Amino acid sequence: MIRRLEPADRQAWLHLWHGYLHFYRGVVTAEVTEATFDRLCSGRDGLLGLVAVPDGRGPVGFAHLVFHPSTWSQDPYCYLEDLYVDPTDRGTGTARQLVEAVYAEADRRGASRTYWETQEFNSPARSLYDVVAHRTSFIIYERA
Amino acid sequence: MIRRLEPADRQAWLHLWHGYLHFYRGVVTAEVTEATFDRLCSGRDGLLGLVAVPDGRGPVGFAHLVFHPSTWSQDPYCYLEDLYVDPTDRGTGTARQLVEAVYAEADRRGASRTYWETQEFNSPARSLYDVVAHRTSFIIYERA
Amino acid sequence: MIRRLEPADRQAWLHLWHGYLHFYRGVVTAEVTEATFDRLCSGRDGLLGLVAVPDGRGPVGFAHLVFHPSTWSQDPYCYLEDLYVDPTDRGTGTARQLVEAVYAEADRRGASRTYWETQEFNSPARSLYDVVAHRTSFIIYERA
Amino acid sequence: MIRRLEPADRQAWLHLWHGYLHFYRGVVTAEVTEATFDRLCSGRDGLLGLVAVPDGRGPVGFAHLVFHPSTWSQDPYCYLEDLYVDPTDRGTGTARQLVEAVYAEADRRGASRTYWETQEFNSPARSLYDVVAHRTSFIIYERA
Repeated sequence: MIRRLEPADRQAWLHLWHGYLHFYRGVVTAEVTEATFDRLCSGRDGLLGLVAVPDGRGPVGFAHLVFHPSTWSQDPYCYLEDLYVDPTDRGTGTARQLVEAVYAEADRRGASRTYWETQEFNSPARSLYDVVAHRTSFIIYERA
Repeated sequence: MIRRLEPADRQAWLHLWHGYLHFYRGVVTAEVTEATFDRLCSGRDGLLGLVAVPDGRGPVGFAHLVFHPSTWSQDPYCYLEDLYVDPTDRGTGTARQLVEAVYAEADRRGASRTYWETQEFNSPARSLYDVVAHRTSFIIYERA
Repeated sequence: MIRRLEPADRQAWLHLWHGYLHFYRGVVTAEVTEATFDRLCSGRDGLLGLVAVPDGRGPVGFAHLVFHPSTWSQDPYCYLEDLYVDPTDRGTGTARQLVEAVYAEADRRGASRTYWETQEFNSPARSLYDVVAHRTSFIIYERA
Repeated sequence: MIRRLEPADRQAWLHLWHGYLHFYRGVVTAEVTEATFDRLCSGRDGLLGLVAVPDGRGPVGFAHLVFHPSTWSQDPYCYLEDLYVDPTDRGTGTARQLVEAVYAEADRRGASRTYWETQEFNSPARSLYDVVAHRTSFIIYERA
């Protein structure tokens, strides 16, 4: 089952978040982590957290959305900023269910574009994305 | 000179905007175009418009920014959604000046990331971007 | 700890070098291997060897540098030709420490560019490189 | 005809060099430019300059080589760092002749690898390179 992230998920979410950051070798301060959790639960700032919760268990994966404005539309864009499933729960369709829940949420809010970034060499992720979405020709440039 | 987009720029901006949309074969209704122009001028919704204005002339290029929240930071991300220079004014350093003005604006607002998308085959754009920024390993997936 | 490669490291280095060559299915004669080891230890020909040496153990990884001239600068370029960590020591931050030691050495010699090649499909390597460096738009062509 | 760069080529070479730098939006000081010209003419530091000289005319293109050591070989590597043909002389086989002269020079010096970098989106260059060489799977990472 996929449902909204809730304050009671804090411990399980922290475990997943740290696994996710470790994957990207990302460094996020404890302060930012706490603020992000709050914003994902409350839906503040256009953020929204979804978690995958198998029967009788706690969250094993998450999807974090950012709804933001665009110049091409009066409807928001839905940016799937973070998607993660605990390594021990992979191969069970959890990531796909999360993406489908993202689409449902994007529809509910009338988003005119739903998109995400992935490293071009991330084969496991892309093998799923090629089925539930399509690769565009866009690459990302970033200020040095 | 680069300055903020203003209501008096409407005619010149419309000309550029249509040239830009034509490049991407984009379709945007007149209603959305009007709303976008208003939001870019007013700075509403985190949008911001910058225009390149050579001495004694009207706008010949624009940069449209969207400042939006992120789960990785409490500071906003600066997304350069649109960048365009009129074909007759290319090769004069205008695009580069616009990007530098974007960086200055991102600094002013404390953005923790400044980024944009480009088609991987857009050689003229990338030859500039490779100098003022760096290509990441990220590609974009989009819901079909 | 990262330190310069020394003649006493010969056995450990040979083990790593053969593991590295095996990864690339590379064939290097014993004669070239001996000459390379000598040049890396002595610093001859602009070569320099660095090794990662965990407390109380022998080398578990290496970085081989080639400082060479360029037409774009009077300062040398620092080419990281080989980087390798023994499979049993991966995931411990050793590769990252080696890259940071490479940067320190490049600074010491006033190198104006520090760069390396990697196969575009080498996901584990690129996931590190994306954090400590940036991918350029350059690809390599080679005489057949 | 392709021949070695000579001190008397200075004016023609400067014109080509600036066109080349302009293409890459590169900034090289006058001091470095003078030193590079001297090194290319003299062959100092492993550098070598070749120029394309059509009958009865001055240089219309150049190839700059850097012969440098490698850990994989006792023979030098031949790095084609710069290749340029004046825009008004393109389409006449000049670039191809320069590459062939590079190969001859690499053979003369016993180079065990001859290679160069190019931006992946540089279509005109790659259409030639695909004929006279082969694209490898290697991409370049660079210290930020």
